[in-house]
Amino acid sequence: MDLLIKNGTLISSQGKIKADLAVDGEKISAVAQSIPTGSAKKVIDADGLFVLPGAIDAHTHLAMPFGGTISSDDYFAGTRAAACGGTTTVFDFAMQDFGEKLTDTVLRRNALAAPQAAVDYAFHVAIKDLRDDLIHSLREAVDFGVPSFKVFMVYDFGVSDGDMLQILQEARACGALISVHAENREVIASRVSQYLAEGHGSAWYHYLSRPEFVEAEADERAIRWAREADTPLYIVHLANREGVKIVEKARAEGLTVYAETCPQYLEFTCDVYKRPDGRNFVCSPPMKGQASQDELWAAINRGVISTIATDHCPFQSYEKDWGKDDFTKIPNGCAGVENMFPYMLSKAGEGRVSYEKVIELCCENPARIFGCQTKGVLAPGKDADIVLYDPQQDFTITQDKMHSDCDHTIWEGVSLHGYPLQTYSRGRLVYDRGSFVGQEGWGKLLKRRLQP
Amino acid sequence: MDLLIKNGTLISSQGKIKADLAVDGEKISAVAQSIPTGSAKKVIDADGLFVLPGAIDAHTHLAMPFGGTISSDDYFAGTRAAACGGTTTVFDFAMQDFGEKLTDTVLRRNALAAPQAAVDYAFHVAIKDLRDDLIHSLREAVDFGVPSFKVFMVYDFGVSDGDMLQILQEARACGALISVHAENREVIASRVSQYLAEGHGSAWYHYLSRPEFVEAEADERAIRWAREADTPLYIVHLANREGVKIVEKARAEGLTVYAETCPQYLEFTCDVYKRPDGRNFVCSPPMKGQASQDELWAAINRGVISTIATDHCPFQSYEKDWGKDDFTKIPNGCAGVENMFPYMLSKAGEGRVSYEKVIELCCENPARIFGCQTKGVLAPGKDADIVLYDPQQDFTITQDKMHSDCDHTIWEGVSLHGYPLQTYSRGRLVYDRGSFVGQEGWGKLLKRRLQP
Amino acid sequence: MDLLIKNGTLISSQGKIKADLAVDGEKISAVAQSIPTGSAKKVIDADGLFVLPGAIDAHTHLAMPFGGTISSDDYFAGTRAAACGGTTTVFDFAMQDFGEKLTDTVLRRNALAAPQAAVDYAFHVAIKDLRDDLIHSLREAVDFGVPSFKVFMVYDFGVSDGDMLQILQEARACGALISVHAENREVIASRVSQYLAEGHGSAWYHYLSRPEFVEAEADERAIRWAREADTPLYIVHLANREGVKIVEKARAEGLTVYAETCPQYLEFTCDVYKRPDGRNFVCSPPMKGQASQDELWAAINRGVISTIATDHCPFQSYEKDWGKDDFTKIPNGCAGVENMFPYMLSKAGEGRVSYEKVIELCCENPARIFGCQTKGVLAPGKDADIVLYDPQQDFTITQDKMHSDCDHTIWEGVSLHGYPLQTYSRGRLVYDRGSFVGQEGWGKLLKRRLQP
Amino acid sequence: MDLLIKNGTLISSQGKIKADLAVDGEKISAVAQSIPTGSAKKVIDADGLFVLPGAIDAHTHLAMPFGGTISSDDYFAGTRAAACGGTTTVFDFAMQDFGEKLTDTVLRRNALAAPQAAVDYAFHVAIKDLRDDLIHSLREAVDFGVPSFKVFMVYDFGVSDGDMLQILQEARACGALISVHAENREVIASRVSQYLAEGHGSAWYHYLSRPEFVEAEADERAIRWAREADTPLYIVHLANREGVKIVEKARAEGLTVYAETCPQYLEFTCDVYKRPDGRNFVCSPPMKGQASQDELWAAINRGVISTIATDHCPFQSYEKDWGKDDFTKIPNGCAGVENMFPYMLSKAGEGRVSYEKVIELCCENPARIFGCQTKGVLAPGKDADIVLYDPQQDFTITQDKMHSDCDHTIWEGVSLHGYPLQTYSRGRLVYDRGSFVGQEGWGKLLKRRLQP
Repeated sequence: MDLLIKNGTLISSQGKIKADLAVDGEKISAVAQSIPTGSAKKVIDADGLFVLPGAIDAHTHLAMPFGGTISSDDYFAGTRAAACGGTTTVFDFAMQDFGEKLTDTVLRRNALAAPQAAVDYAFHVAIKDLRDDLIHSLREAVDFGVPSFKVFMVYDFGVSDGDMLQILQEARACGALISVHAENREVIASRVSQYLAEGHGSAWYHYLSRPEFVEAEADERAIRWAREADTPLYIVHLANREGVKIVEKARAEGLTVYAETCPQYLEFTCDVYKRPDGRNFVCSPPMKGQASQDELWAAINRGVISTIATDHCPFQSYEKDWGKDDFTKIPNGCAGVENMFPYMLSKAGEGRVSYEKVIELCCENPARIFGCQTKGVLAPGKDADIVLYDPQQDFTITQDKMHSDCDHTIWEGVSLHGYPLQTYSRGRLVYDRGSFVGQEGWGKLLKRRLQP
Repeated sequence: MDLLIKNGTLISSQGKIKADLAVDGEKISAVAQSIPTGSAKKVIDADGLFVLPGAIDAHTHLAMPFGGTISSDDYFAGTRAAACGGTTTVFDFAMQDFGEKLTDTVLRRNALAAPQAAVDYAFHVAIKDLRDDLIHSLREAVDFGVPSFKVFMVYDFGVSDGDMLQILQEARACGALISVHAENREVIASRVSQYLAEGHGSAWYHYLSRPEFVEAEADERAIRWAREADTPLYIVHLANREGVKIVEKARAEGLTVYAETCPQYLEFTCDVYKRPDGRNFVCSPPMKGQASQDELWAAINRGVISTIATDHCPFQSYEKDWGKDDFTKIPNGCAGVENMFPYMLSKAGEGRVSYEKVIELCCENPARIFGCQTKGVLAPGKDADIVLYDPQQDFTITQDKMHSDCDHTIWEGVSLHGYPLQTYSRGRLVYDRGSFVGQEGWGKLLKRRLQP
Repeated sequence: MDLLIKNGTLISSQGKIKADLAVDGEKISAVAQSIPTGSAKKVIDADGLFVLPGAIDAHTHLAMPFGGTISSDDYFAGTRAAACGGTTTVFDFAMQDFGEKLTDTVLRRNALAAPQAAVDYAFHVAIKDLRDDLIHSLREAVDFGVPSFKVFMVYDFGVSDGDMLQILQEARACGALISVHAENREVIASRVSQYLAEGHGSAWYHYLSRPEFVEAEADERAIRWAREADTPLYIVHLANREGVKIVEKARAEGLTVYAETCPQYLEFTCDVYKRPDGRNFVCSPPMKGQASQDELWAAINRGVISTIATDHCPFQSYEKDWGKDDFTKIPNGCAGVENMFPYMLSKAGEGRVSYEKVIELCCENPARIFGCQTKGVLAPGKDADIVLYDPQQDFTITQDKMHSDCDHTIWEGVSLHGYPLQTYSRGRLVYDRGSFVGQEGWGKLLKRRLQP
Repeated sequence: MDLLIKNGTLISSQGKIKADLAVDGEKISAVAQSIPTGSAKKVIDADGLFVLPGAIDAHTHLAMPFGGTISSDDYFAGTRAAACGGTTTVFDFAMQDFGEKLTDTVLRRNALAAPQAAVDYAFHVAIKDLRDDLIHSLREAVDFGVPSFKVFMVYDFGVSDGDMLQILQEARACGALISVHAENREVIASRVSQYLAEGHGSAWYHYLSRPEFVEAEADERAIRWAREADTPLYIVHLANREGVKIVEKARAEGLTVYAETCPQYLEFTCDVYKRPDGRNFVCSPPMKGQASQDELWAAINRGVISTIATDHCPFQSYEKDWGKDDFTKIPNGCAGVENMFPYMLSKAGEGRVSYEKVIELCCENPARIFGCQTKGVLAPGKDADIVLYDPQQDFTITQDKMHSDCDHTIWEGVSLHGYPLQTYSRGRLVYDRGSFVGQEGWGKLLKRRLQP
């Protein structure tokens, strides 16, 4: 036995149990009322601590070219930050190049990721180009072990409604799952030009050009295409109130629609864009009004939200400053991969949500939905991706404690009650009381297969 | 008294009354139980006949450039056909040119229409271009007496979602009413290229590239923009089942959404596109499935449909033939202005709908919605636009009996029970037992003002 | 010509026209731009006045035994008050006795009504007892000319859900229309005993024992039985917000559901029950909260409300006083038949609703729905039930100006702008500038036949 | 270590793992990849077998007086049958007597149950009487450890809508959960008398007197009361299609509504009532049409159904025969407690549902919803309620193999693929390859506390 964690409280969606947990090699080998310390190489007394599965962040953008630059965390920095926040599996979006087969996209990006990753990782492929039979490379990617894809309804690399419908139909044919960034491109473009023409360039106009209904409309439309294609859909970063209702209505009709939301939408509202540093909060979709935030929390508690993920996509301050006077020049995205699990668990500590629900949203559901069979659950035979969490430790987020390469954090000053003490990735300690202690290149690419 | 119609049955949405009707000059002067024939210049005994307000066709395209040609009825031919079918007011769509102010569009087209029109006419302006402050020419057009406009969500002259939202907001500001041709451009484009790439060029693929959901999605989206702009919306040629539901849902939320449908959607289904002459039926949106047709009739009877209009836009056979092997080369549109009122009244004779409802849909409602204060009702002071209708006369539609310039009709062979005997336009007889007896240039431009 | 009304403004749902109107005998004989005064026995110059069809009050309870007494207006007093408020047709509810055939109910009550009625009247029969084949007497009543019936879901004479369903099925079989008083009896009973047990006996607890949801639930249930029976339903005195939504939802499913509301729900809220004279306002359903009132007005303007009626059922002050300390001892009901038409027209004058809509709700729709073919419309051949209305006359409602036998009015002090000058019943002047000038027994029983 | 189950496949809602499971005393002590057999008193090789948590049947009626007799399984026979079907926790409904405090009801029934129960058991109390402050005995029962109650909307012991609303309000106040048997009493009564009057007494008329909409209406009404009381609701034996939709709609509004269905509704349709032995299938609600059954399965798979339970309430053939000619004389209810878990697992084997979902519905959810903290999950510290299941064993249900005291089974002849080999109740073997090997009185009363 390589590691024995004694007397901890293990939490799953099914509840809490007081038990010992043993690790042999990279796997959890036992969960028991009492495991003798005898043969254990290392014993930890977790009395008073929570023993949790490592979180899965199904939505990050590492080293991604965007807005004339590249997101500031590469695969090492991003996965290091993840490890230090108790996240042991990171999904990155690999952006297809024009003319590129989808498996080639994965291979191209994996060449970057493999030598850098500090925890295990996986790819969704973001599809841009269907021409010349490229759409049929979906099946090849599924067979390769990358069965999840994304389409953008916005940005210049977004797809048309016609392409999106075709992609969904192909996904149905080969058992893939399509995620969607849902906002209405044309309304945004129109509002942006109006505001700029009127001389309104501050971050507040970023919100005004993408208000609630711009997202809700696209949610509704995306779901319609999924209905026509008769296939599941995963909506990333759902941030608006009406979208929650739209998802529920779709499910009541029998559709499988997953909804992801992000910690930033649960903590901040659009009011942040009125702050002097508003541009640092610019991401898309933007934070929304209080009614949307309230609805997202309610949706979490009534089972509408399927997963929490971060949309981690940081840019340095000097890059954010490009858009000081013109919000369209601000690269979209913020850091968050290190904050998700601590933030959600702290909210459980406050009673806003149950610990069990947090484990379901941050660990079990992403594992199940995206086919990570060895992840998300503390059970014998699963990967020993484990977080030791101290529910009593106070922690205030400040930039200097973070492990991203980004030079600032929108979470600056946010106080948490409870924080991770240690993170294990496949049995290896990678984070210990504030410090990254893992190793670049330790993380492995997850090949996945979706459950039918 | 210039004309006395005795003993007829006058029909309005309020019911039938047996009464005499007198005309002085261009106006109806009296409706009474018995008017002495004494001073009447002309007396007609309408015993056994219906005396009806002339119909209003709120949707025609006369002399319209489209698909590389021009629709085959000019303002004379189109209004002549209208007169012969009991329609005494014809709305035409004046298409804005790029860079053109909207009142200029009206003046430009009115120069063509004024010398030709055989019955009264009005314009909606189809908006294509908002740039350079052209959007503010909406108010000028409203003040000029043209308070209704149209946007297309399809075709190269369609507008973006962003433009549509702006137009609706401007319409709210100046009290205008926006109509919309609702189909999803991107899905159509995608399907069209797929079908053509697969070698499918027959008229049946015109339907397959624009099936029910392509229209329903756009209905839903268009209504959303109207909701955001907080202004009424008029959906032209609603042809799909789900669209009916969407309209009802919107109304239940408090929105003012008018829905127009056309006789061709009530009589034909998409099966016509499998016929050898299927290309003659090509119009957009295309005829839909039986379920849609059934729902449209049900919607008429439960009050969801606001108006009936024709989308009259005929093309000659040789032009339709351009698309024999490639449906995208078929000019979209069919003749119908002469058939609407007789067809609907015949359906009332069959009991599919009440006569009262037909008068409401074809006369009263378009007059009320589009601000034709002198039209649509048989009452003293109103324009003497009158149809004498024989509910017992059998009539089979054939091309030789029609008065359009188009060389064929999709209504060929359709049997009606009941047919107009005479049509009066502002007191002047313009149609008499099969023959046009009116005069080119008699029709006047209606200047209108919408009721709040 | 017996009467000629010149230069008035005639209003229908189709709009306003400036015209002369002639009456011969009991009928309207002509509507015309100009009718020569020559042969007219009496000529009225209505310049500046509105000429309106007399209103139809489809909901009154005259001389009705209830709450241990009898409502204070007999057939003379009630119809006299109606005439003085511009209402020329009064529907009364004839309550079936146990064991009584429904036609016998009509005959029994008509023996009281015929010698007394000052304007025309009709009966709905309120069904209490289906046993011993009495349900089949529905058809006989329909054949007799009484095709509309009512069921109560409350009161000791209310019917069970099972009976209601049977009645609706029988109504479908013989083409009758069922009205329903929808409130949940059991919840009311439970709340009443709770409040009384707690010593709460004031009028405010009348409201609390019958709040919004008590009505909404019964609306929903009643509509369900109509759906199962596949037959139309008429909901009387709809007073709650959610009920409006329920009606709209039912219509969107294709059901024919009519909704009536009453002026008291449009003017007062439940706050009146906190007034010292709160008991005078006790009726069932009670006035509701502001949100319900707002929704009712919105529903009127978006076409959800079918008719306005009064539920006129007055009790004297000494009777209302019985319940000073125990609201269950207050006879339920208020006077209103004289106030409906003036109130609604005054609201049109204020712009809250259009005059056209008021005529539709108070005249045309009740005539059409309940099969009063000779009523509701100003057209040749129709009964000369006419109101001359002065839109400029100010009027404050006070008890001394009312013509009911009741000794008080809940409308005391309400100011109206505009008031009826004269009322004609079948050509006979029955009300003239504040005074009843008609005759007891002038009114005739309307035999009716519903339109399919 | 008292028991070691090696090499089995453990199933939870989170998936399957291959692991060893150890039991010490009455508790599960370890789950591990490999547990040495060394100190184990008993070792079972479960290679090829499933190791499952014992099922929880949240709905049975043991020794219940009903229909003039008493249900034929007493607490021993019923729990013995449960054990033999892999069900290790049985909920019984204790029926309040008139005038009885609710804790007294529990004590009265527990005096019967305690000496008889073969597996652990719990009580819901069915409330009949609220008078004289009895409603406040709810809180006492909650404190006692019985926090779940039931109301009937039908039967002579059912409650009125007013009582139901009061009970829900009290439940909210003291944190109790209310279950409801939802059917419309009045419509049933009316239909029953109609059918009997027409001479229709066969079992088929049992169905016709309680068709789909009779249940749907009550579902809707019950949920409305829960909404007004702002408290959760648990709908027992949901059997109709529309009810599923109603539950989903309620949840989308934010209500907590649990829905239970039963194996008999998933296997049989109303067609069984046309069989010669149709009366044996008489239970309430009755089996419904195919559309309802299809919807129930769909609802299971899209997460609408919360739990599976049996409504086990058997009557002997001679009792069922009482109603040979008059269905109202048939005692309502069927045996099922032994069939639930094998049936659902067999359906998982067929692919109709996943094994994971069956464990969620039959074990985890009832434990969580009804506060059985020690049950439903295979984890260290939980009660050793374990089922060894052979997914390959064929089994045809016949009366002689069943362990109920009832002399027949509606499941006769139903073929299953897969069957339990052994059942353990708190570590004790109680069922072994076809035979009950447990002990009367072994089962203990569960005292429970609901999670907020």
